[in-house]
Parts: sequence; C-alpha cells; structure tokens
Amino acid sequence: MIRLESYLSGVWQPGKGEGRAFVDPTTGAALGTVDSSGLDIAGAVAHARARGTALRAMSFAERGALLNAIADVLVANKADYADIARRNSGNTARDAAIDIDGGIGTLKYYARLGRTLGAGRALIEPGEDQLAKAETFKARHIWTARPGVAIHINAFNFPSWGLWEKVAVAFLAGSPVVAKPASATAWLSERMVRDVVAANILPAGALSLVCGAGEGLLDAVDRFDAIAFTGSADTGAMIRGHARVMERAPRLNIEADSINVAVLGNSAAVGGDVFNLLLREVTNALSVKAGQLCTNIRRILVPRDKMAGFVEALVAKVDGIAVGDPALAETRLGPLCNDGQRKAALAGLARLTAEARPARGGDVPASVNGADAKKGAFLAPTLLVAPSGQNLSAVHDVEVFGPAATVIPYGSDDEAVALALRGEGSLAASLWVDEAAEAARLAAGLAPLHGRVLCVDPVVGASHTGHPIVMPQCIHGGPGRAGGGEELGGLRGLRFYSQRTALQGSPAMLEAVAGQAAVAAL
Amino acid sequence: MIRLESYLSGVWQPGKGEGRAFVDPTTGAALGTVDSSGLDIAGAVAHARARGTALRAMSFAERGALLNAIADVLVANKADYADIARRNSGNTARDAAIDIDGGIGTLKYYARLGRTLGAGRALIEPGEDQLAKAETFKARHIWTARPGVAIHINAFNFPSWGLWEKVAVAFLAGSPVVAKPASATAWLSERMVRDVVAANILPAGALSLVCGAGEGLLDAVDRFDAIAFTGSADTGAMIRGHARVMERAPRLNIEADSINVAVLGNSAAVGGDVFNLLLREVTNALSVKAGQLCTNIRRILVPRDKMAGFVEALVAKVDGIAVGDPALAETRLGPLCNDGQRKAALAGLARLTAEARPARGGDVPASVNGADAKKGAFLAPTLLVAPSGQNLSAVHDVEVFGPAATVIPYGSDDEAVALALRGEGSLAASLWVDEAAEAARLAAGLAPLHGRVLCVDPVVGASHTGHPIVMPQCIHGGPGRAGGGEELGGLRGLRFYSQRTALQGSPAMLEAVAGQAAVAAL
Repeated sequence: MIRLESYLSGVWQPGKGEGRAFVDPTTGAALGTVDSSGLDIAGAVAHARARGTALRAMSFAERGALLNAIADVLVANKADYADIARRNSGNTARDAAIDIDGGIGTLKYYARLGRTLGAGRALIEPGEDQLAKAETFKARHIWTARPGVAIHINAFNFPSWGLWEKVAVAFLAGSPVVAKPASATAWLSERMVRDVVAANILPAGALSLVCGAGEGLLDAVDRFDAIAFTGSADTGAMIRGHARVMERAPRLNIEADSINVAVLGNSAAVGGDVFNLLLREVTNALSVKAGQLCTNIRRILVPRDKMAGFVEALVAKVDGIAVGDPALAETRLGPLCNDGQRKAALAGLARLTAEARPARGGDVPASVNGADAKKGAFLAPTLLVAPSGQNLSAVHDVEVFGPAATVIPYGSDDEAVALALRGEGSLAASLWVDEAAEAARLAAGLAPLHGRVLCVDPVVGASHTGHPIVMPQCIHGGPGRAGGGEELGGLRGLRFYSQRTALQGSPAMLEAVAGQAAVAAL
Repeated sequence: MIRLESYLSGVWQPGKGEGRAFVDPTTGAALGTVDSSGLDIAGAVAHARARGTALRAMSFAERGALLNAIADVLVANKADYADIARRNSGNTARDAAIDIDGGIGTLKYYARLGRTLGAGRALIEPGEDQLAKAETFKARHIWTARPGVAIHINAFNFPSWGLWEKVAVAFLAGSPVVAKPASATAWLSERMVRDVVAANILPAGALSLVCGAGEGLLDAVDRFDAIAFTGSADTGAMIRGHARVMERAPRLNIEADSINVAVLGNSAAVGGDVFNLLLREVTNALSVKAGQLCTNIRRILVPRDKMAGFVEALVAKVDGIAVGDPALAETRLGPLCNDGQRKAALAGLARLTAEARPARGGDVPASVNGADAKKGAFLAPTLLVAPSGQNLSAVHDVEVFGPAATVIPYGSDDEAVALALRGEGSLAASLWVDEAAEAARLAAGLAPLHGRVLCVDPVVGASHTGHPIVMPQCIHGGPGRAGGGEELGGLRGLRFYSQRTALQGSPAMLEAVAGQAAVAAL
C-alpha cells in the first residue's frame, strides 16, 4: 500500500493518522492512503509566504526558465505518470495525455511568456495619462507581485494539469504556491512534485504540497494570499464562508459547477462537415476522461427540424464507444474516479431522466471489456433527449459529472440564447454553424454569461481545439454558477496574483520605473 | 423638517416609519429624517434589473451623452448643492466644491470616454492568438455588460462624488444602478437625483435611490449583480458575510479603512520647494473636508535628521488653520459629519496618543469662529508625533476619520517601506523627494500594497493633483485592509460591471464581432 506524503517547509512528511484510502477505479481495489492530520500546515504556509521573496527577486525570464526546468523534469517521467493516471484515475492513454501533456504544455507556454517579458519584475500598462496642463505630471499603471502565498485547492479530475496550470501562472507572477490535490487522485500530483523537488530546481519554499485534508490551509490564510479553488459549488461556498477567509479576505478565485452548452446553428446542414464535427465532439464529451471535465458539453441545443437526424446519427456514434479497462487499447470510456462519484452521477441522472428520456445509457452497464462493471466505477455513455425546451429545470441545473449530456430542441436564435442562459453562467459554450454571421449573433448573446465561446464554422472545420479543452492563451472560468473565476488567458492570469497601482509623477520617475518593467495589459 | 424619499421602481416614496434624524453638524440641530422602512426594495431591484436592457441597448456614445446630460443638470443647480453641503455636511465652499465639482467632473470625464468609444456596445481587447497551425482558428477576448444591477452603498463623506463616480462607470458599462447614500448626508444625494429624474433624461429603471437602511438591498441581490461598497471595514465584513450575498455570490468591491502614508524622502532639502509642498499637503489633510477623506494622509514618515525642522514648520502651519462655521469665508476647517463621528474620532485619538504625543490638537477645541465648538461636531486640527518608528501599533492600525495625522521618524529607504507596509494595504501613498530616482526606488517597494502612489519631485512641483484627490484616470482602491477594491482608472473601472469572454473562431466570425465593438484593454 502506498502512503502519500506532504511536502511542507521543505520536508516530505507523512500524516499522523490512519488516512483515507484511494482506489483503482477499474477494480475498486485500494491502492494506498492519504493523510495530512497532525502536520504543521500553518507553519508551512508561513514558511512559503516568507520565502516568497526569492521568486519575486527573480526576473520574468528567470521565472520562465524555472517553469521550463519543471516541464523538463515532467517530460522525463511521462511514462510513470501515465501508469499512475491509469491506475488511480482510470485514465485511458488518451485521457492521461490530456492531463499530463496538458500540464507540461501549459508550463512551457508560460515559460515562453516569461522569456518574452525578459529582465523585468513588474508589468507596466501601455499608455499614460497627463494629469496636469504641463507635461510635468503623468500617470501610468503598474502590476507588481503581491507579498502573499497562493493556495491552490485542486479538483480530482486533473491531478496534473490542474496542479501545473495554476503553478505556471503563480510562479510567473512571482507567487509561491501551496497546492492541495484532491485526495482521490493525489498520487499523481505527489509523484510529480517529488520528481521536481528531487531535481533541486525550485527556490526554497516556492512549492509546497498538502496531501490530505485542507482545512488547516484556510485557517492559515492572510490578507495578501490568494486562494484558487476548483471543484464543487458546495465546497466553494464553504471556502467563501470560512471564518478566517471572511476575516482576512484574501483574493479568492472559484471555478465550480457548470452546465455548458453546445448549439447546432440553424445554418448547419444536416450531414454537413460542421454537423459531423459536432457529432464527433459530443462523442468525445461522452467518453474522454469518462466525461469528467468541468468544461464538458452537458446540454446540446439542436434546431427542432434537425433533431431526428441529429439524435439518430449521434446514437450510432454512442453505440460505437467501447467501455472497459482503460489499459485496453480499444477502450474509449474508462471508469469514473470512484464509486462515490458514480453514485453522485446516478443521483443526478435520476433527476435528469424525470425531464428527458435516455436514448442511450443512464445506468451502470451490464458488462464492460476486461473489468467488472459493478466493482469498477463504470457508467454507460448516456445520451438524454428532452421533448422540448420548455418545462426543463434539472437539465439546466444539475451537473452530472460523467459521460452524460442532454439534447434539447429549439427554434429561433433568441430561444437558443435564452435556453443557454438558463445555465446561469457557464465556463464554455460552443456554436456549430455553416455561416459565421450566425455564430457572431449567437456569440454576442452568450458572451455575458460565459468565460469562453467556441465557434466552429466551415473555415475553422477540424482546426478547432475542442469544446472542453482549455487553451492557456484563453481565459478559463465563468460567471455566476460557474464561480466567477478567471484563470490563464496568457498574461491575463497574472492579474490574480498581482496588485495594480496607479503611479503618478514626473516623466523621469515614470521612466525609471518603466525601465525595470515589461509592458503588458492584463 | 425635511423628509427624504426614496426613488424606487420609478416612483418617489417616503418610508413608512419614523425615520432617523440627520443634522447640521455646525450646530447639532436636526434638519430632517431619512427612512426606507416598509418600502418594496426587492421589487425596485428587480425593476432595475429587468430595465437594464435599455442601457445595454445604448451604444457607448449614447451612454456617454447620458452622462453629459446628467452633468448638465447638476451644473445648473450647483448653488443649491453647495448650500445643502454646508448645512448637512458642514462643508466650507472649498469642501463642497471637491464633492460637487468632483462628481460633475467625473461624469464629464466618462462622458468623453463614451464619445471616444463610439457606436460599439462591447469592448474587444487588442491583439489575437492563433490557436491552430493554419490561420483558420484564432481567439480574441471581449468584454460585455453583465445582465445584473449595480448596488452602490456609499459613504457619508462624499454624497455627490461618491454617488456620481460610481454611476458614471456603471452607466458607461451598461449597468443600471440602485444607490444607497449614507443616511447622515443623504440629503444632497436625494436632491441631485430628484433634479436628474425631473429632467427626464434617464431611461426607465436606470437609476434608483434608497434613502434609509440598506439591508433590503442585500436580500435582493442575485448572481449577476455587482455590489460596490465604500465605508467602514466592519460594514464591509457584514456585507461580505450576508447570507444572500454568500449564496448568490455577486461581484463585490469593497473600499474600507486605510492608514495612508506620505513619505518625505532623504533627498528632500529642508525648506526646499518639495519640503514646502508636503507641508501644504499635510495642512490640507488636517483641514479639507475636516480630514474626512478615505485617501487622506494619516501617517507622515520623515527622515530622523529632518524631524525637528519638519515638525516645527508644520506646527506653524497648523496654528494658522481657522476652525469654525463653514459659512464664514475665512474658515478652513469645519465640523465633522456629526457628533457620532466626533466620538469615534476621539476614541481613536485616545489610542493613538498612547503611542504618539499631540504636538497640536487632540480634542474638541476650546472655541471656534461663529459656532459652539461642543454643540457643533468640531475637532481641533491634530498633529501627533511618534518618538520613533519602533513599538508603534495603533498608529498603523487605527484610522481616525478626521483632521488628524501622525509624524513618524525613519532612517533608510528600507525602513520607510517597512513602516509604510505596516498599514497592511492602503489606498494611496505619496513620496516627496528632490531626486526622481529615490521616488522610483520607494515606489517599487510601496506599489504591491497600494492602489495609488503619488511621487512629487521638483519637476512635478505644484502641478501635482494632491495626495487625497482621486483622479478618474487612475484606479482608486487598495489591497488588504483597504478592502481589495478597484474603481475608476478610466476604462479599467468598467471591468467590475463586465464579463470577459474568450472568443474562439474563424477570422470572419471574429471580425463580425469586432465590428460591433470598440478596442480597449481594461
């Protein structure tokens, strides 16, 4: 049995309790335990905060080089990581690559940004305002690193990408990180951090890891810290209402439930290229990472007159999804993260099926390839069909975190937008159209309640990067129910860890400050 | 007796209770009552939210024209407003101008920005990212108006500027506003809104006013609303922890206590121009608006070897401050807002004087010109001197909201920065130096914990706009204790009312969207 440890104040240490088991979701067998009880988490947070000066003293180029060095360590150990991802997350090789390569790619992207920014340690916005009649008194706005620690509380579905996408941005901004992976899949995070620590490339205190419960982290926050949380709305609300968080009011970024929508446009020809690309995308939504992506398609809006053709074609694709042991080359859909997640998904499906009929799936499959469907956390790929856009409630409200989505008919552009907005704020929407003008119209309606809108037209075709895929160039996060957060988006992500300051003074003073900074808007 | 009314759902209406008295602080006499009990505030918020579509349908240029029309109404009635400011806020003519002209100027500034932005209704950031190998798939980021209402809870010290600086930004962003002025000085806000409503220039539902208690406002918030609060840290914490605010998690901007610092640099010659400018600035801090500015100088750091000369010169200036009835032309320091505010200031001073000796003031003056110093809410201009920078606690921690500041000696640059940061995050710092390089050094140290840093060197000289003065071009707000908010700053202020969305698609789609938008970064 594996016993995961925490890396606190520069020392690997096991918890002092029994711990909580984590499993192989393909078989249900326990793999090890995770525990942080009795550890000095407050001391570790203070240690990280005090050592933050080291990262802030580095130039952007040096921070970027550090990110590159981390990526190099991870690349060297990719095979080990894929093995852990399969065993502890039930990932197929493709699923594991999204998590592992996604993390490495994001580190490398931010490493490149750091190199571009060069020798500065602060960012200065382009442009200035003249505040007096003479040219003697002007203002510019600069961004500097806050003197706190970043506390990252990550979700179980991306133990690699979720860890490194946040670390990449925080490090480039000059902030030390204390990361807490979700216990169910912490093994991969722990192994990766072990390798990076062993490579001896990190400044002291730059990266700490809490494997186990995270309450102690919240008790340790202070005014200039930043908490970034990815997970359920309930846990997000708990963090927001935590007494110490309320009192010290650190920055808080929450990314929570999201009932994302894909819209087939009225201009899309049934059987056309874009129509087929949406079929492929929904099939991915019902298989990749067992559907456990916060950005995944949950609702598919289809013009009423195209419903029959779309559902028929989609059912044929869903029937082709091979479910089973993720170690098998033919498997496209592995198990959910564990039986608890499957129970939650089934409870959600029970609510959805009161409003929409299952065209496929809806339950534990009778059998799967190479595994026991019941002992493993398997769920059949599930396609629900709503009879109309009216009288739906749970479909817009309940996130089934697994391989499940609902097709909903609509008529006009306005109806599509109104139905999409019933999600009350989502991470990502996608539009699948034959005419770019239709996409522009729908996008204008959807933008205020979404962090990202993907538009696929015949010009984009297969060159799009996918509805659920978070590109580091684009912001990730959504308003309302989705938590109101904003991550990544190139340099935009640095905002969360930085303070913007209006600097008023003489041209010489402003030039002296600008000479130490790189020009950028966040 | 005046009975203030609220403007809700397009109707002026009095509260159904007795209400709370507001006074003339020069005499202590009651002027009228303010009350919102029994009014349908939730209905008014819903009304404003539903009518928000009207503002969002207007172009930026049209919204700017609306702001100009508001400013024109206010300009036409300035004399009435100055009279109310004197009677209800104890403002001198100069104090009143800062509040009234400050509000009008900010409206006009944002009106100009609106005209510059032109026909668009959304903002699109400059630059794009290519996401595929071919030029078929790119990303841009756009900002659109959130479909909620802006709830503005304002402080007593700026019933005009505080109202209109927030309205200007919200309206330009396309957000309807429900404003709640502080009860003690709501009269001026109420009269101004009355004049603007009577001019019949506002779209229905664009502006509502709650005169009285504001609890009902918080009970009415929803996911896409934005609450901007200016006032005490305690009230800020109450808003943050309010059950409905916690549950619906609207955007929240808090601007609270701030122990702002001014630093005389080691390069500044005693008796030189910059030295004298700081003397003038501190004298203003101890008189303008009776010291009741959240951005006001509270701590003055002075090189140890310049202390004696600085304090001596400053005392002479303080002795020249005429205290009394704000109606008298010679009065520079009028009363505080009311006796409650004076009691709070005296309680704060009791804590400060345990650490720093009063060189001048510290209590109710024995007599003032043309008024009864005790019946009116008068407080003597108060200059405290700390014996050293060591062993100070209350001086860095207690905001005395009145005409009071503390001089503190320091040695090195590093010591100055360390002492300034003991404020744990402030709205504004100022640096007074003879060498621009010294300002650049100190500014780099202060920036992470300040929303604004003003640097006065010989080139800037008297052309600076003042330590406490909030210029609409520059962001206003500060991290940590100061609440973590960010207002104004030109277009930067629109961020709070807007949603940023990554838009991914074909060049044609992105061009179609950009064609409806103005290019800007926030």
